[in-house]
Amino acid sequence: MTIAINTQIHRVSPQTPINLHTSLTTPPTDFEHSKKALKEQFKTESKALTHLQELMYAQSKHAVLIVFQAMDAGGKDSTIRHIMTPINPQGCRVLNFKAPSAYERERDYLWRIHQHVPPKGCFTVFNRSHYEDVVTVSVNDFAPKHIWQKRYNHINAFEQLLTDEGTHILKFFLHISKDYQKHRLQRRLDRPDKHWKFDPSDLVARNHWDDYMQAYAQAFNTCSVNTDAPWYVIPAENREYRNLAIIQIINQKLQSLDMQYPAPQYDASQYKIN
Amino acid sequence: MTIAINTQIHRVSPQTPINLHTSLTTPPTDFEHSKKALKEQFKTESKALTHLQELMYAQSKHAVLIVFQAMDAGGKDSTIRHIMTPINPQGCRVLNFKAPSAYERERDYLWRIHQHVPPKGCFTVFNRSHYEDVVTVSVNDFAPKHIWQKRYNHINAFEQLLTDEGTHILKFFLHISKDYQKHRLQRRLDRPDKHWKFDPSDLVARNHWDDYMQAYAQAFNTCSVNTDAPWYVIPAENREYRNLAIIQIINQKLQSLDMQYPAPQYDASQYKIN
Repeated sequence: MTIAINTQIHRVSPQTPINLHTSLTTPPTDFEHSKKALKEQFKTESKALTHLQELMYAQSKHAVLIVFQAMDAGGKDSTIRHIMTPINPQGCRVLNFKAPSAYERERDYLWRIHQHVPPKGCFTVFNRSHYEDVVTVSVNDFAPKHIWQKRYNHINAFEQLLTDEGTHILKFFLHISKDYQKHRLQRRLDRPDKHWKFDPSDLVARNHWDDYMQAYAQAFNTCSVNTDAPWYVIPAENREYRNLAIIQIINQKLQSLDMQYPAPQYDASQYKIN
Repeated sequence: MTIAINTQIHRVSPQTPINLHTSLTTPPTDFEHSKKALKEQFKTESKALTHLQELMYAQSKHAVLIVFQAMDAGGKDSTIRHIMTPINPQGCRVLNFKAPSAYERERDYLWRIHQHVPPKGCFTVFNRSHYEDVVTVSVNDFAPKHIWQKRYNHINAFEQLLTDEGTHILKFFLHISKDYQKHRLQRRLDRPDKHWKFDPSDLVARNHWDDYMQAYAQAFNTCSVNTDAPWYVIPAENREYRNLAIIQIINQKLQSLDMQYPAPQYDASQYKIN
C-alpha cells in the first residue's frame, strides 16, 4: 500500500494568510497510519530520492535549495539527518547559519547566504537561513524596523534571482507547540548526552514565543509570492509524519522536472576498453 | 582658482532616457580650461579623496562600490590607476570581472559579484561588472531574451539591497566614439609595449558597436531608478576631464555623508604611554 500525504494542505498560499496559532503541529485527525507503515513508506521515498539526486547530478541542469526554520527543539537537525543522509554528499551540502560573525556583519546580511547557494546538479540545505534576519532580528530589535522591513523585498528578489536562473527552492517550517517544546527542552536537560544541544539562550526565545509566531507568519505570508519558492508549515511533533511529508514534497518537485540522463557526446559503440 | 565640473549633466535620469549616439564623448564646448589647470585641480581632489577614505575607514559605517564599464580601450584601467592609486589599498580592492569560469557559471551570475561587495569602511572597484550579464550577453545572444530580460529586475533589487544595508554605489560609463576607439586600438597594435592589451576579440565587439550602444543605454535607463546608485556617462576622450569629473563625483558623494572620526570608547587623558 502506498501512503501519499496531502502535502498541499501544508503549503502557504499568499491568498490565504497563515496563522501559526491555529496551524497543525500534529497530523490531521483523519490521517490514520501506523508508525511502521509510515516508516516503510519513508524507506521507499528515500530510495527514490537517492535515484533522483543522482539523475540531477548527472544532468547538472537544476539545483535545489532547501530551507529549514523552526523554534528551538523543533527538529531541524533530526529532519536533515533522516532525509539527507542517504544522499551522496558529493551532491549535497548542509549549511548551518548561526549568529553572524563580526566579519559577516561588515557586509549585507544576504552576503554570507548567497555564497552558499547550490551549484547546478546539487542540493544545498540551510539549517536556519536569511529568514533569521527578519524574524529573529525583528523580535529582538537587533535592527530598527525601517531596516528589517525592507528585507522582505530583498529576500523575495533574491529568491526570484535564484529561481529565474535555475534553482528550485523549498522552504519548510517545522511547527511544534510551546508545550511540546517544553517537553523536548527538558529532555535536553535530563539526558547528559543531550546537554550539548541545550543553550540557556533558547529560553529567551521561548519567552517570546508569540512574537516569534507572529514574525514567522508575516515572513511566510510575505515570502510565498514566488510559486517556485513555496513555504510549507509542517506538523512536526510526529516525526514519521514530518519526515514523510517533507521527503514527498521534495520527491514530487524533483519528479516534476522530468530529468533525463544527458545524451553522450560520443558514440558508445565506437569505443572498446582494452 | 577652483575648477568645478558640472557633473550633473552626465548623470542618467530615469525620467530622460539617454541616447549614447548623442551623448558627449568630449568635454562640453563651453568648458575651457588648460590641461595643466585640470591636472592641478585633480591633485587637490586626490588629496581630499585620500583624507575622506581614511575617515571612511576609521568610521567603518559606510561602504562604497564603484562600477566602471566601457567599450574596449575606453580607459577603464587608466581611470582606475589615476583615481584609486593614492588610496590606501588596505581600504580598497579592485575586482576585474572577465568572462565567467565554468565554476562560476554553475551558479547565478550575481553569485561571483556579491562575494566581492565592499565591507564597511572600504571601497571596492569593479572593472567590468554584472552589467556584462545583460549587455554582453544580450548583444552576443549568450542567453535567450527571456533569461537576460529578467536580469534588469535582479540587478535593481541587488543594488537596492546593497544601498539599503549601507553601501553607496557609483556607476561610470567611460564614453568614447567608434573613431576614437579605432585610434586607441591601432596604438595597441603599433606599440610592442601595448601588445598585451590587444585581444583580437575586441574587434568582434567593435563590429557590434551600435548594438552595444543600444544595450548599454537600455541598461543605464533601466538601472538608474535607485537614486543612491546612479549611472554617469562620462566623456572619456579627454583624460584630464574624465579623471576630474569622476573624482569630483566620488568626493561630493563622500562629503555628503558627513563622516566623523568615531569618538573613542575610552578617556584619552587617563592613559599615559610609558
